[in-house]
Amino acid sequence: MDIQSISFASRFNGISGSAIREIFKLLAVPGMISFAGGNPAAAALPDRQCAELAKELLLDKGKSLLQYGATEGYAPLRESLVPYLKDRFSFDCKADEILPVTGSTQAMDLLCKALIDPGDKIAVESPTFLGNMQCMKLYQAQLLPVDSDEDGIRVDQLEEVFKKEHPKMLYVIPTFQNPTGRTLSLERRKKIAELAARYGVVVAEDDPYRDLRYAGQELPSIKSFDTEGWVAFLGSFSKVISPGLRVGFLCASPALLRKCVIGKQSSDVHTANLNQAIVDAYLRRGLLMPHVERICQSYAEQMNTMLGLLAKCGGVARYTRPEGGLFIFAELNEGMNAVELLKTCVDQGVAYVPGTYFYPAGGHENAIRLNFSMCTVEQIKTGMEKLNTVFTANLK
Amino acid sequence: MDIQSISFASRFNGISGSAIREIFKLLAVPGMISFAGGNPAAAALPDRQCAELAKELLLDKGKSLLQYGATEGYAPLRESLVPYLKDRFSFDCKADEILPVTGSTQAMDLLCKALIDPGDKIAVESPTFLGNMQCMKLYQAQLLPVDSDEDGIRVDQLEEVFKKEHPKMLYVIPTFQNPTGRTLSLERRKKIAELAARYGVVVAEDDPYRDLRYAGQELPSIKSFDTEGWVAFLGSFSKVISPGLRVGFLCASPALLRKCVIGKQSSDVHTANLNQAIVDAYLRRGLLMPHVERICQSYAEQMNTMLGLLAKCGGVARYTRPEGGLFIFAELNEGMNAVELLKTCVDQGVAYVPGTYFYPAGGHENAIRLNFSMCTVEQIKTGMEKLNTVFTANLK
Repeated sequence: MDIQSISFASRFNGISGSAIREIFKLLAVPGMISFAGGNPAAAALPDRQCAELAKELLLDKGKSLLQYGATEGYAPLRESLVPYLKDRFSFDCKADEILPVTGSTQAMDLLCKALIDPGDKIAVESPTFLGNMQCMKLYQAQLLPVDSDEDGIRVDQLEEVFKKEHPKMLYVIPTFQNPTGRTLSLERRKKIAELAARYGVVVAEDDPYRDLRYAGQELPSIKSFDTEGWVAFLGSFSKVISPGLRVGFLCASPALLRKCVIGKQSSDVHTANLNQAIVDAYLRRGLLMPHVERICQSYAEQMNTMLGLLAKCGGVARYTRPEGGLFIFAELNEGMNAVELLKTCVDQGVAYVPGTYFYPAGGHENAIRLNFSMCTVEQIKTGMEKLNTVFTANLK
Repeated sequence: MDIQSISFASRFNGISGSAIREIFKLLAVPGMISFAGGNPAAAALPDRQCAELAKELLLDKGKSLLQYGATEGYAPLRESLVPYLKDRFSFDCKADEILPVTGSTQAMDLLCKALIDPGDKIAVESPTFLGNMQCMKLYQAQLLPVDSDEDGIRVDQLEEVFKKEHPKMLYVIPTFQNPTGRTLSLERRKKIAELAARYGVVVAEDDPYRDLRYAGQELPSIKSFDTEGWVAFLGSFSKVISPGLRVGFLCASPALLRKCVIGKQSSDVHTANLNQAIVDAYLRRGLLMPHVERICQSYAEQMNTMLGLLAKCGGVARYTRPEGGLFIFAELNEGMNAVELLKTCVDQGVAYVPGTYFYPAGGHENAIRLNFSMCTVEQIKTGMEKLNTVFTANLK
């Protein structure tokens, strides 16, 4: 029988792979200035430190690091995450309420695995992170978009959705959101924890950018207001140490975490021990925050340069003013189409991600997501000038 | 609302987690002689070599290894797998038909993700690997057990199952099978490739033990007889380099592999680059096979010691005689219950895994799986003496 007659699972109906990851493939052109990625700067990746740590850890405890590990995670990392979470995210949890995972993407996958049957509903910010939307769609969830404004997701709309639609989950990125860069206000954080408990909705609080703050005041996590256990917290070291190591973590109430552990047994058995041990060393030896401070200095300058130039960029009607993270979200004048203009921009040597991809219901073709972490200040100036040229030539 | 009112996805109905992994937790007693695991010996884990490689690779190309990688995998590893597969598994494939994964467990997960809707049927050997049975059950597949004998899965039964039940997949471990240690004969390998193409069934050929051969003749993979692309090959470096690094790979026809790549985007984005680069170095620099030869010498002696003592062990009615791998499968006398006897054995300081867990339909309470890789020859002698004592005292 011809292999073309193979039939795939219905979860793939309507799924075509990440549009962003396809765009990235087009950008491997020398000299391209890319505002499209969401990657850390090369300078922010601690290669020498990791080289020394990897060698030291493997010489010191290689026999156990190279052996099978527990699905529940590398015990020292679970322990060192406890004070980190208390200190940085303002919540108490026990080591056995923490599951190290293979990047926080896997945390989202495991939450869906634990909770979502086809047709189940998940409330999401509109716009939100594309990768996790694809995850939810592969679990055949129905996504319920909730509008966001300068203070993050609108909790008035959210309560209506909870009341009427009874979603199983809310997916929210509270700090320096992807793609908008916005931060959820303190009041809304409290309110979301309260609504979750009132309506029995699991909140997947995805907070990978928090440590990249360049201005303003830190806010406590939604999880810190969680008294009943409905908030599951997704953490990542991809933006502050290395995405290539694939280490994140999930904190959740015991019964939910147990289901995620069982799900993880057949996802990848456990997260690579060496990678967990490297992250543990960053936490345990106090290496993380000094490293974060170093990279924030540079990112702040990059962001401020881009914000300054956006104010003067032709065709840009409005844009967000983040206090940290990796992204600025802008809207071009009504009628300008960012998907079509991308081709021209790429020809001119500059790229962004059209904002429409981040909207669960599509539309918003005039929106663009700009990343500033991967470019030098000089590149940002050159790239913004190119955008200005293209947008000004295509004004509407 | 109380968190106890949380409701989980229906895929967890009847799933309670890996019985084996729960047994392992009971074995963390000093002095316990465990024949229960499936782990490489500590001596087989190349900690110093990995320490040097990790440092060298991170110093040399740390900026790219610590950055996000392609979901499709680390390009040098995909390339170095091509001659490895040709040489060791006798089949040709292109680099872009290979997907590095986070342990071959993930390959199975991605195949199910790509192919299995709830209720779809998967033919499996009876008995077979517990971990992947759990994976299939979490995709709500219906497992169709097919008997096996000294030459592996019975292809006469298999053809009947293909004809009558139209499964979407066959899951098979052709070499030194887990749990039986048996190897599928050459004729049956050919026949399975032929049946797969005739009936349009994807074969998941899971071959992690192949390089651990201590006697007899190597056989070509099922995939080497695959002319139509129905065979998907699952490879692993867990048994020959390190399970803790979590690196395996999947070879499949392009359309199927593409679905697995899309599935992997939201599973864990990509497998950790450093871990892929370490495995690549083993292949590229010719470090793998000399390492394998070293560990095989020791494993052969361990296996032969256990086989010799099984011949004299009270209550053992029959056992398999593997030519490699990590496991021997034995049957106690009819009426002896290996699940109940395990408690007594653990009290005496020796452990195994009851064979019943490996049978999709249960039963076979007199069967046991014995692993020899994690014990010294002395420990094997002591442990087998303990088993002899317990079994002889409980003869039926």
